[in-house]
Amino acid sequence: MVMSKGAYLFEEAAKLGLNKFQLGGKGFGLVEMSRLGVPVPPGIVITTEMCREYYKNNRELPSGLWEHVVTLINELEEKTGKKFGDPSNPLLVSVRSGAPYSMPGMMDTILNLGINDKVAEGIAKLTGDERFAYDTYRRFIQMFGKIVMKLHGEEFEKIIEEIKNKYNVKYDTEVPTEGWKETVEKFKEYIYKNAGIALPQDPYKQLKLAIKAVFDSWWNPRAMEYRRHYKISDELCTAVNIVTMVFGNMGEGSGTGVFFTRNPSTGVKELYGEWLENAQGEDIVAGVRTPSPINELKIKMPKVYEQLEEVAEKLERHFRDMQDIEFTIERGKLYILQTRNGKRTPQAAVKIAVDMAEEGLITPEEAVLRVDPNQIIYLLHRQIDPSVKEKIKPVAKGLPASPGAAVGKVVFSVDECVESARRGENVILVRPETTPEDIAGILAASGVLTSRGGMTSHAAVVTRGLGKPCVVGAESLEIDLENQIFKASERTIKRGDIITIDGGDGTVYMGNIPTVEPQLTREAEKLLSWADKIREMGIRTNADTPEAAKRAREMGAEGIGLTRTERMFNAPDRLAFVQSMILADSKEERQRYLNKIKEFQKSDLKEIFRVMQGYPVTIRLLDIPLHEFLPKLEELLPEIERLRITDPTNPMLKEKEKILKRVMELKEHNPMMGQRGVRLALVHSEIYEMQVAAILEACAELMEEGYEVKVEIMMPQVSEAEEFRRAREIIDKAAYEVKKRYDSLPDYKVGTMIETPRGALTAGKIARYADFLSFGTNDLTQATWAFSRDDAEAKFLGHYLRNRIIERDPFETLDKDGVGKLIEWAVNEARKIKPYINIGVCGEHGGDPESIDFFFNVGIDYVSASPYRIPIAKLAAAQASLKKVKQYRSTI
Amino acid sequence: MVMSKGAYLFEEAAKLGLNKFQLGGKGFGLVEMSRLGVPVPPGIVITTEMCREYYKNNRELPSGLWEHVVTLINELEEKTGKKFGDPSNPLLVSVRSGAPYSMPGMMDTILNLGINDKVAEGIAKLTGDERFAYDTYRRFIQMFGKIVMKLHGEEFEKIIEEIKNKYNVKYDTEVPTEGWKETVEKFKEYIYKNAGIALPQDPYKQLKLAIKAVFDSWWNPRAMEYRRHYKISDELCTAVNIVTMVFGNMGEGSGTGVFFTRNPSTGVKELYGEWLENAQGEDIVAGVRTPSPINELKIKMPKVYEQLEEVAEKLERHFRDMQDIEFTIERGKLYILQTRNGKRTPQAAVKIAVDMAEEGLITPEEAVLRVDPNQIIYLLHRQIDPSVKEKIKPVAKGLPASPGAAVGKVVFSVDECVESARRGENVILVRPETTPEDIAGILAASGVLTSRGGMTSHAAVVTRGLGKPCVVGAESLEIDLENQIFKASERTIKRGDIITIDGGDGTVYMGNIPTVEPQLTREAEKLLSWADKIREMGIRTNADTPEAAKRAREMGAEGIGLTRTERMFNAPDRLAFVQSMILADSKEERQRYLNKIKEFQKSDLKEIFRVMQGYPVTIRLLDIPLHEFLPKLEELLPEIERLRITDPTNPMLKEKEKILKRVMELKEHNPMMGQRGVRLALVHSEIYEMQVAAILEACAELMEEGYEVKVEIMMPQVSEAEEFRRAREIIDKAAYEVKKRYDSLPDYKVGTMIETPRGALTAGKIARYADFLSFGTNDLTQATWAFSRDDAEAKFLGHYLRNRIIERDPFETLDKDGVGKLIEWAVNEARKIKPYINIGVCGEHGGDPESIDFFFNVGIDYVSASPYRIPIAKLAAAQASLKKVKQYRSTI
Repeated sequence: MVMSKGAYLFEEAAKLGLNKFQLGGKGFGLVEMSRLGVPVPPGIVITTEMCREYYKNNRELPSGLWEHVVTLINELEEKTGKKFGDPSNPLLVSVRSGAPYSMPGMMDTILNLGINDKVAEGIAKLTGDERFAYDTYRRFIQMFGKIVMKLHGEEFEKIIEEIKNKYNVKYDTEVPTEGWKETVEKFKEYIYKNAGIALPQDPYKQLKLAIKAVFDSWWNPRAMEYRRHYKISDELCTAVNIVTMVFGNMGEGSGTGVFFTRNPSTGVKELYGEWLENAQGEDIVAGVRTPSPINELKIKMPKVYEQLEEVAEKLERHFRDMQDIEFTIERGKLYILQTRNGKRTPQAAVKIAVDMAEEGLITPEEAVLRVDPNQIIYLLHRQIDPSVKEKIKPVAKGLPASPGAAVGKVVFSVDECVESARRGENVILVRPETTPEDIAGILAASGVLTSRGGMTSHAAVVTRGLGKPCVVGAESLEIDLENQIFKASERTIKRGDIITIDGGDGTVYMGNIPTVEPQLTREAEKLLSWADKIREMGIRTNADTPEAAKRAREMGAEGIGLTRTERMFNAPDRLAFVQSMILADSKEERQRYLNKIKEFQKSDLKEIFRVMQGYPVTIRLLDIPLHEFLPKLEELLPEIERLRITDPTNPMLKEKEKILKRVMELKEHNPMMGQRGVRLALVHSEIYEMQVAAILEACAELMEEGYEVKVEIMMPQVSEAEEFRRAREIIDKAAYEVKKRYDSLPDYKVGTMIETPRGALTAGKIARYADFLSFGTNDLTQATWAFSRDDAEAKFLGHYLRNRIIERDPFETLDKDGVGKLIEWAVNEARKIKPYINIGVCGEHGGDPESIDFFFNVGIDYVSASPYRIPIAKLAAAQASLKKVKQYRSTI
Repeated sequence: MVMSKGAYLFEEAAKLGLNKFQLGGKGFGLVEMSRLGVPVPPGIVITTEMCREYYKNNRELPSGLWEHVVTLINELEEKTGKKFGDPSNPLLVSVRSGAPYSMPGMMDTILNLGINDKVAEGIAKLTGDERFAYDTYRRFIQMFGKIVMKLHGEEFEKIIEEIKNKYNVKYDTEVPTEGWKETVEKFKEYIYKNAGIALPQDPYKQLKLAIKAVFDSWWNPRAMEYRRHYKISDELCTAVNIVTMVFGNMGEGSGTGVFFTRNPSTGVKELYGEWLENAQGEDIVAGVRTPSPINELKIKMPKVYEQLEEVAEKLERHFRDMQDIEFTIERGKLYILQTRNGKRTPQAAVKIAVDMAEEGLITPEEAVLRVDPNQIIYLLHRQIDPSVKEKIKPVAKGLPASPGAAVGKVVFSVDECVESARRGENVILVRPETTPEDIAGILAASGVLTSRGGMTSHAAVVTRGLGKPCVVGAESLEIDLENQIFKASERTIKRGDIITIDGGDGTVYMGNIPTVEPQLTREAEKLLSWADKIREMGIRTNADTPEAAKRAREMGAEGIGLTRTERMFNAPDRLAFVQSMILADSKEERQRYLNKIKEFQKSDLKEIFRVMQGYPVTIRLLDIPLHEFLPKLEELLPEIERLRITDPTNPMLKEKEKILKRVMELKEHNPMMGQRGVRLALVHSEIYEMQVAAILEACAELMEEGYEVKVEIMMPQVSEAEEFRRAREIIDKAAYEVKKRYDSLPDYKVGTMIETPRGALTAGKIARYADFLSFGTNDLTQATWAFSRDDAEAKFLGHYLRNRIIERDPFETLDKDGVGKLIEWAVNEARKIKPYINIGVCGEHGGDPESIDFFFNVGIDYVSASPYRIPIAKLAAAQASLKKVKQYRSTI
């Protein structure tokens, strides 16, 4: 490889074949386009390596870099015939960030750099358009002031408002030449007063500061938050693109626009985008003016449109993916400023991947790898019930920016949005428009509604990436942020009112409108069928109810990996019996209640077995400690004290005191590590004998009805082989009793959860007695970190994640360094004893793509995920198989 | 090796060189003695292997064994000229158990086997002593009925009582011939009625049943309990010894006795024991008649005594250890019936080991290996304060069976003893005498007091083995079990009264007599000095107070491995400040209280540093969650409810409600896995900054006074390297602040506890930032098993141990299969990063010999034990080194 010089002209970089990680996404696109002969303005890329060096170097430019950039600027001057700071023929450039992965709006960009008092005058003379010259100048100062000199952006906006008021105009485009001249003066004055130094007039000085500012923006809070959410490494850093300015705001015949080569919302193959005449790029992205659809360009400038179609075809073929393209038309001449793989809705992602595979552009395997499994969940976004929708009228209509229906309380501030979401409330963030500063609110909201902006406005782009319902540009809304209300169709909606938005068609409704489960599209079914052919890991579901089991079957679950039986104890119609059983004074009494509970559980289980039609069903025996079925101490104590003082002869008092006594006996300091699962089973086997009887009697009776049943009985919390051996004895004995009474009984299997570190460490010994093992990764994570999940989230885990003490929530994505080590060890030890023992995962991680990849690689046979996560799991499992093949190929 | 035939004559076994594990301890002793020419009665050993086969064989004798035993009996008949079942010259044998490790009184023995109606008549004729013949017969029936036919022993005693009443005599020796004859008839009648079959008259039938009964007794509850306590493997099984009977009860000139070759209580080199004239062995061990000291035999039968001295010398030289010898004199002829390594008090163990090394009988290394480190703790048994002792009068005096002073409540029943001990109470078990059935009570009691029995009675032997204070044969006591009282010196002492016993001189006192720490003997000092030379592991102490630190220094601790700082927060004089700090409304208020707390901690720490005189002191920063310093919810809730109803304007209500609010905020579901240690430090660094300041200011001020100080600051609960890196930043920053204000400051070290499984799994990464690591094996055990220690003991761990679901309490002896794996992994990973990083253990296991051996072998540098366990740790560490050398040698 050629030693990096740190900065290159586009054509140099193309020759060297530098990649996206060196050039950033934007720079890579420009370099590739220049190679393909697509018209791009000449420019320079500074590599991401320089940014890393910059940080290592205490935020000083790496030695030699600046000198080299100056040389390259000279070459640019030669190419363009323009000169930096020369009023008679000035070179202006944009300075843009560009990270290896797209982070739209997260980092900073400065346009029109190279302009100063003299150059502005020069441009006025050259173009004969003084207004354009000072508009350009004021735009530069505004960006430079905010980004490089770190002044408040709002203050600049305020100054513009004053000018508009003075000249009594509404839009920027109406401000007269004098107005922009005055603005420039006021801006300079504001900068001098607040930054303590004057706006630099030397273009080189401007450039050097701008480069540093772009580097700095890698660590701004918005960008950090974005990286955290999208799991982008901090180490990647950003490149800097220095590109010759072209101007879309040079009057009619000029313009700027963005478009996708396919519809990013639906995936349909068509140019899809917007453009604004007489405007600079930032005007579109900021969503301030509502632009026109791209097909209007076909009428206005048919040649240019044709050129765009050619470019689209060429770039899609080259990059083998749908492109998101920015362009500017300067007095009729087209420049492509940027191309990148386009963000899309999950729906579009699936359709595009499948279409491209069917078009022969990519292979089905590539299509499977193209869709982020986490996004698949949004294909399953709830929709407003169509039968209800017919009959109701929306209060407003905007653009369908990101599909899916969302119901929630109206909130107007980002902080409140975050707080409410933390309390578990569903909220809809309502704003005139969103900016990168609002990212935390958007992440927290169930949906977003804006009154301004188009399909490529900030809100639209971000929510699509997140697969979150969003309606933008609902212009009829009158949003009053101060009073926290908005008006629509003559109604006033207050903060806290419930609304429903439909991001599929842009409609907004009052109240909580019923929603329904969606159906998978043809393309999604196709993609998942490819995934099913590719994947090697089994996919089961976690389902405690017949409804969940049914849903999971529809999603294609190949069995149940975890049926928790706790619900069968504490559902309202049976909790009283369970409490009576726990409080029973005699063995006989206890047995009487157990018999009653058994009948409930039997009928619950029959329903589930029926639904599962012979697919394996893994039933976990009671896991939680008994005290969880009794009233809470915090309620009992004051009640009893009150009765003692106010009504001491009340017979309830005696009753409550009896319960209190039992609660105190059963109370545990750390219930999570207390008498639960097998530890309860070995001491109070009667409850577990009842459960085994319920399970097997249900099976037997269904088999007599002609059903096929496959059952696996699972004991939780095992830490030691002997614990499990004894538990298995109890189970087998109970099963033997059932066998005596029924003709047919399935060959039930008995296995155990591996969910304590010691269970994992001694899995080899445990496997000796087990028919199967299933990792309970939730509890295993808890004990391995010694983090109580119930306490950690509120008390310190949030702090850890916000402060990046840990990168990921270990309860969401499996902690490979710690918990993963135990799992790997356990699988290996168990397979040494029983090479073909069936090993699954039934914790939450069974539905997390990254974790699924890990599980596949350590040799897990199946994962069990909640029903709505099954498509995710299938896709992730297929990707894991493909990646392994790829890795294997790369080693031979 | 010769294939085992399963049974051998003593001389055969001697020739084959069979070992203790094959022959059991008793059999091995007999075989070795026969080889050395010591007079033993001819006999047969059935090996332990046969016992194992017997169990594998569903409790049937292994095929061919019985036929071989019959052949050997025929050889015995030839040797002795006597014949099994021949009334004219009958062969009688004893059938005894004998496990590889001595389990005195735990298993069964049958004497006089071979007698029946005809043989009894024959013996009467042969000896001319009809009374002897029927006494012999009734003894046989009694043992056979109880052991082989499983009838209640008490019933036989009752029949004897009736006979004694009938003949109006007090002692067995006074029962006339007719009495024994009647007894025999009544015994047979009782057997027939209750066992459903008659007493077998065929000696071979008797023998076969007796062999099986001895095998069976390996699994009787007493024996199981004993093995559990002494950690003897169930797999070892027992041998059976069939030995020609000799009779010590053939009138004057006959007798039986037991003696030790050195004093088992003090270790002094002298014959020490007892004998009874005209008695069988069981009379002594049962402690029913009080025997005479062995030196009286010197006067009565000087020749025999001389023979005994010779035997003692020979056997000690051969076995290279102090011997416990049983003998019988049959009409002037001495027979040695058994020799084994004698049980001894810890004091004696130490003295004998050191003396033997100094006599040149063994090496100092062997001496170090001879003493069980667990026993050393009893050298440090508290003694009654000598200054008090001078002034008080005992209420009774017995024999000093096992030294040490014990204070406790009087209890008379084994069950109550066990129950009280479980509640944490100290109890003294008071019984006329103890029997093997009482073992659970003796294990639970703080001390034992009996009114009967000698220095080798059951109570004496067992308590000596346990190193538990015991006074036996306090004959002036009148014990009334029915009314649960005893009388002594005209006072009546009830159940529950407190008494103090001194096992060192046999005195008994009313009430709680003050006790003092003992001094180590010369021999103990010597032994420990040898251990110090041998051991390679460092020994530190866990000490939270200057007193503990002082004690530990006296014991030879080489530093403090763990100073918990919790006491420095919740000692009564400062808890109020800590609570105010937690409840503080403002940062300033909180800081004010923190400053106050800092001063307390500083002065605590200075005291400890002074005592430790430059030895390293490891201080653990606050480990427990904040809510532990606030009042308990269970108290607050009823109080507040009461105030609300009865006194709603009371200002206390508001105050309590404020506290409640904070308690609810801080409340955790599983505090053990909650916001504690580093998780608290990273969120509330101010508390930890205060602690670091207190520590380093204390150091600085002491250094200015000229003290040497070596300090190590330890952060608990670390699960992740980044957690520790951040914590270290807080510590180093706080230290930097202190540095600014003081001239001298020690080079403090910063390290972490490894006490979560993830901490262990990622120890390599953590080590990068740490100066030292210290395993907190208590918490590590908790999390690895997911057993909450606070809950486990009461709820299920007891059940697990009693039912042998797990063999050892993992909180007492390190669980090598689980926790040990993590420790081994962590040490290896840490050493890969920092080969010389100092790694210690500061959990309870640091004072447990078996765990210490493990720690040494995985490469731990030092263990930290509570002060009184330091001698144990030293000895265990030395043994670990010696064993490793031995192991190494055996591989080359």
